[in-house]
Amino acid sequence: MDIIADIFTTLLAQLQKPTLAFLIGGMVLAALGSKLEVPQPVYKFVVILLLLKVGIGAGMSVRESDLTELAVPAIGAALIGIVIVLIGGKVLAGRRGVSNMDGMATVGLFGAVSASTLAAGMAMLESDGIAYEGFIGALYPFMDVAALVTAIVLARMSAERARATAPVGGAATMTMGGGAGAGTGGKAPLEPGLIKGILVDTVRSPAISALFLGLALGLFARPDSVYDSFYEPLFRGLLSILMLIMGMEAWSRLSEMKGVAGTYILYGLTAPLVHGLIGFGVGLVAHHLTGFSAGGVVLLAVMAASSSDISGPPTMRGALPQANPSAYVGTSTGLGTPVAILSIPLFVALADWAIGL
Amino acid sequence: MDIIADIFTTLLAQLQKPTLAFLIGGMVLAALGSKLEVPQPVYKFVVILLLLKVGIGAGMSVRESDLTELAVPAIGAALIGIVIVLIGGKVLAGRRGVSNMDGMATVGLFGAVSASTLAAGMAMLESDGIAYEGFIGALYPFMDVAALVTAIVLARMSAERARATAPVGGAATMTMGGGAGAGTGGKAPLEPGLIKGILVDTVRSPAISALFLGLALGLFARPDSVYDSFYEPLFRGLLSILMLIMGMEAWSRLSEMKGVAGTYILYGLTAPLVHGLIGFGVGLVAHHLTGFSAGGVVLLAVMAASSSDISGPPTMRGALPQANPSAYVGTSTGLGTPVAILSIPLFVALADWAIGL
Amino acid sequence: MDIIADIFTTLLAQLQKPTLAFLIGGMVLAALGSKLEVPQPVYKFVVILLLLKVGIGAGMSVRESDLTELAVPAIGAALIGIVIVLIGGKVLAGRRGVSNMDGMATVGLFGAVSASTLAAGMAMLESDGIAYEGFIGALYPFMDVAALVTAIVLARMSAERARATAPVGGAATMTMGGGAGAGTGGKAPLEPGLIKGILVDTVRSPAISALFLGLALGLFARPDSVYDSFYEPLFRGLLSILMLIMGMEAWSRLSEMKGVAGTYILYGLTAPLVHGLIGFGVGLVAHHLTGFSAGGVVLLAVMAASSSDISGPPTMRGALPQANPSAYVGTSTGLGTPVAILSIPLFVALADWAIGL
Repeated sequence: MDIIADIFTTLLAQLQKPTLAFLIGGMVLAALGSKLEVPQPVYKFVVILLLLKVGIGAGMSVRESDLTELAVPAIGAALIGIVIVLIGGKVLAGRRGVSNMDGMATVGLFGAVSASTLAAGMAMLESDGIAYEGFIGALYPFMDVAALVTAIVLARMSAERARATAPVGGAATMTMGGGAGAGTGGKAPLEPGLIKGILVDTVRSPAISALFLGLALGLFARPDSVYDSFYEPLFRGLLSILMLIMGMEAWSRLSEMKGVAGTYILYGLTAPLVHGLIGFGVGLVAHHLTGFSAGGVVLLAVMAASSSDISGPPTMRGALPQANPSAYVGTSTGLGTPVAILSIPLFVALADWAIGL
Repeated sequence: MDIIADIFTTLLAQLQKPTLAFLIGGMVLAALGSKLEVPQPVYKFVVILLLLKVGIGAGMSVRESDLTELAVPAIGAALIGIVIVLIGGKVLAGRRGVSNMDGMATVGLFGAVSASTLAAGMAMLESDGIAYEGFIGALYPFMDVAALVTAIVLARMSAERARATAPVGGAATMTMGGGAGAGTGGKAPLEPGLIKGILVDTVRSPAISALFLGLALGLFARPDSVYDSFYEPLFRGLLSILMLIMGMEAWSRLSEMKGVAGTYILYGLTAPLVHGLIGFGVGLVAHHLTGFSAGGVVLLAVMAASSSDISGPPTMRGALPQANPSAYVGTSTGLGTPVAILSIPLFVALADWAIGL
Repeated sequence: MDIIADIFTTLLAQLQKPTLAFLIGGMVLAALGSKLEVPQPVYKFVVILLLLKVGIGAGMSVRESDLTELAVPAIGAALIGIVIVLIGGKVLAGRRGVSNMDGMATVGLFGAVSASTLAAGMAMLESDGIAYEGFIGALYPFMDVAALVTAIVLARMSAERARATAPVGGAATMTMGGGAGAGTGGKAPLEPGLIKGILVDTVRSPAISALFLGLALGLFARPDSVYDSFYEPLFRGLLSILMLIMGMEAWSRLSEMKGVAGTYILYGLTAPLVHGLIGFGVGLVAHHLTGFSAGGVVLLAVMAASSSDISGPPTMRGALPQANPSAYVGTSTGLGTPVAILSIPLFVALADWAIGL
């Protein structure tokens, strides 16, 4: 009974956090027919600021770490992010009734990382006196960006494929710069030129541009003063505004979820555990090969288990505007994040059993 | 002579405060024909942020207080707010030449509360060593919201009535969702369905939605971190922008005030005293019935005497866009607030005489 | 070799500062074909906030200084700003291929003052134990505003003259309120009414309105609380956004600079030294006449040598939207500021030689 009370308290505390509270507030407003509206230009600017901040912060944390030490774990983290998205693409986005856009957006968030969940994991290890490598904090951008970009490119490729195989009609013309892939029906492989076109297009999209610009500024410039005085303090507030907007949109598109909601719930409840085990496995291999610490293995698992509540929603909203926030924000922020937080003790126990703490 | 110098110093200090200074700045810009313009989408967003902040702050202060202790005084405070608006509706909004919109918007601000005037009252009591109940700070949202919503609903009802009694014409069609009230001429009572429609419409309006959303978030969620890092620090600045906008509009609509300015000046100079006495009377009854402290009676009087310079202007601007800011901002911020501040010592003296301090 | 390494380090540090880093970031984004875009209404609002901040800050620093002591040096500073612009108008804006708009915008920035270069100069003097007058900080708005307004008025007058001398056609009608100057060909002197019209128009333009409103608020009101809580903390961040926007625009208009880039580079490398010497000369005269300190002479030279990286770009962007930011931001922020900073020790040595420190 105590465990159930604990879980309930954790869930309630999660719901009361600004992120979810504003999301729910937006849904309630929409449900009550409020005419509140955040103007488009402001909304676009809010997304740019959020992604610049995420990028600058990630770039700065990479810059401040030892790059030679970081290289191998960083590649490992990026691969975990990509693998999670590829698996999710099969498991969720292929499911009957689940739109490819919605599925890939959701999977991208589950591949990306929640900095606050990671911080919770770090705090838990520290209170238990378990050591971990100092560069762990600099690993998360690699997993994060790799997962988000992979998911966006896959979603766009699949949209392109759908367009190419659609019966030739007025609206079915190709708008992608790269080259006009002739529709050959079925699951036709996309031409290489088209894939390149989608990649270029993704990098040029406002959301990914802002994220990469932030990364570059954090890595190569010294934006610390402006980051500390502007981007960082405004972040929570602007995120609350974005959550409000996404809540309103999520409600208005909730009916699209009818019939497939169960699929998302199942994915949201199980994926964090599976992803965490993937991260744990990669960490365990690194432990035996390079002496990666047990604490590091736990944190890699937590990173993989967590789903993005910060970098993800604005990125997806900017890069895949057709995707339904009820699906991806609901599943990731509503289910993935609490499950990931609740599973941290599990990974600690696992590390104790497999490595010894 | 000293008193006159004192009053003059107080007035000058009031005029130099950011709120009034930006308002006057906006008026001067408009008078000089400046082409400065705050873009609409930004302006709308500023109003949303301001009202979210006002709501969250009020909700948090209510949440942090003892609800059982608060219930009766809260109802009293709300009733005072409503009574002030009802009286003002007769006294000011009925006056010849005073438009109903302008009158009700002004009366709503005089019913609402100025947090800074209330804080000035508290500071004065504390420096005199006069005790008051700890929950007083949580009372003000009740008076504030009750007065604002009552004034908005009355203004909209009267606009609806005017439209209903207008000769049938192209533009006179009913746009309200509730039901099409047939125009029966004269001061026809509105149909119950229509009143409900106006109430629903008011709650759904962007301004009141944002205010109520903030209240709900402050009451039921834990938005403290985002409130402290974003809404609260940005508040003064965003208010200065709103005041600038309202100053420019006030100037451009100043000519509408020709002929009725005297009425507003008379109201602005006398209403704070009358409202303060109403608050004092209610407090005195509470003192004899429940032992409400003398300090509490003074603060209830100050609350009733004060007129809103923070929550009011953005609310009216959002909910009653037709109302003329020259009327309501000018009368309340320009006259009501200084008079209310200057009358605090009067209420202290009155409490000393009636109760003994 | 050490000097070259020093210069290189200084240049790199300059490039990594947020201001230039965001400018370069914007150029890279544009070069890569990014679709990132800061919406117009947001951009306009950012400019208003920046100029309000610059104005309020300048007004407050003037208010806090002794006006009788300030009067003569302030007139001197303003004259230096005007002279720099007049010289630059002959030297740069008259050059073949250099558009008058671009030239005057550049010259205006070189006449205006970089507060951070001035601060660097003050820090250098203080570390050397060289005394200077306390009111120096309050001098810079006079040079700054005088240079900017002179450049804008001259640019507009020349545009008006060009329009007046253009062959009569559909688009060549006069739009200025003042009076329709008949085109008499050649370098016809503008009618006095037209000059007044341009002056009035400049003061009414959104950029200059915001700047002057800020000045007035800083001088006559007490905006300190809202300045400290809003305008000042947001400043760096909003400037980074403006720099991003200007970088993108600078890139897209870089081709216009083909053929005249050399002229701007030459101006950017030599003007700071020439302007610094002008400032030094005026300071030297003041030293002999009024006992102006040697430290003050150095700082007046630094002020004159510096080119605006803060107040200038938003002012020019707002007041002369046709001018090409590749020209004025590139020349001033990219060349003028580093040269000015590097020449501070030169002015210190000069003062030691001419006055003795």
